[in-house]
Amino acid sequence: MKKERIILGIDPGTTATGYGVVKTDGTKTEMLVMGIIDLKKYNDHYTKLKHIFERTLQLIDEFHPDEMALEAPFYGKNVQSMLKLGRAQGVSMAAGLYRSVPIFEYAPRKVKQAITGNGNASKEQVAGMLKSLLNLRELPTQLDASDGLAVAMCHLFKKDVGPDDDKPKTWKAFINQNPKRLG
Amino acid sequence: MKKERIILGIDPGTTATGYGVVKTDGTKTEMLVMGIIDLKKYNDHYTKLKHIFERTLQLIDEFHPDEMALEAPFYGKNVQSMLKLGRAQGVSMAAGLYRSVPIFEYAPRKVKQAITGNGNASKEQVAGMLKSLLNLRELPTQLDASDGLAVAMCHLFKKDVGPDDDKPKTWKAFINQNPKRLG
Repeated sequence: MKKERIILGIDPGTTATGYGVVKTDGTKTEMLVMGIIDLKKYNDHYTKLKHIFERTLQLIDEFHPDEMALEAPFYGKNVQSMLKLGRAQGVSMAAGLYRSVPIFEYAPRKVKQAITGNGNASKEQVAGMLKSLLNLRELPTQLDASDGLAVAMCHLFKKDVGPDDDKPKTWKAFINQNPKRLG
Repeated sequence: MKKERIILGIDPGTTATGYGVVKTDGTKTEMLVMGIIDLKKYNDHYTKLKHIFERTLQLIDEFHPDEMALEAPFYGKNVQSMLKLGRAQGVSMAAGLYRSVPIFEYAPRKVKQAITGNGNASKEQVAGMLKSLLNLRELPTQLDASDGLAVAMCHLFKKDVGPDDDKPKTWKAFINQNPKRLG
């Protein structure tokens, strides 16, 4: 008998942070929740970060995930946007670290690849595949939310087929394992 | 009679995070604690971030600061280092946001300027001035720790002489107020 596992997926961003929670018994996988933390309405940078931290913590305390998967781009337009993204990732990670939930990261391309078989798939293609995989009644309309769900599913696929723990232990190891992400 | 204020200063980094706590009654200012969160010994990136978050939270719960001041460079060598720094800042901020401690940020140059009158002062000069300002018996030997103390003192000076709340409300406002930091 396989153990039940619950995965929390997060796509951190300071405009919107998407999240999704999936549960699997090893045979059947279902979605428990999917949504976005809408941050457009807040002007203050710290208020945005506070909401990301608190909502992530709420999700952890409500669904008790065994693992947390983050969509994490490792390159960006400029140092300013990367600092901002790093902060959004940081507050989200802080919630997981506070509750001792193991954290795993996947680049956007890897998520798309895992869900659709194509690393360049559109958000709509990813959403369509999630609908089919999880027997959702409707296509996710909030694409940021489906990004959160997608990274949770990506982690599940990866952990089902991959080695038991393939999380890079260090930043350097991550970079070495993902050389293309530096381009 | 002026109100007593306690300021927590943090200089976030994934090699070492410096911190310092000062208390003032408006006339006399004293150091309550100064130290570093030494992260060199941990290989795992998440373990480093977890320690930054948890120690910051401990400091807040022990000293109940009224405000938190962060040393925050707004430029860096490359996007990778900025993402890493953003994460370190993010987990540290998460602790402050969780306890509803107002956060303020100062660029390294501004901190040096506030303490020594010279934005290009060396770490040793900053440490020497802190010793004199706070009547410390010895010069801080851990310079990362004195950076934490320096940003706490910078905030105190700034709040003593400046407008009541000069924190930029948005990221954009910060950039506008600090155009040189984009160079």
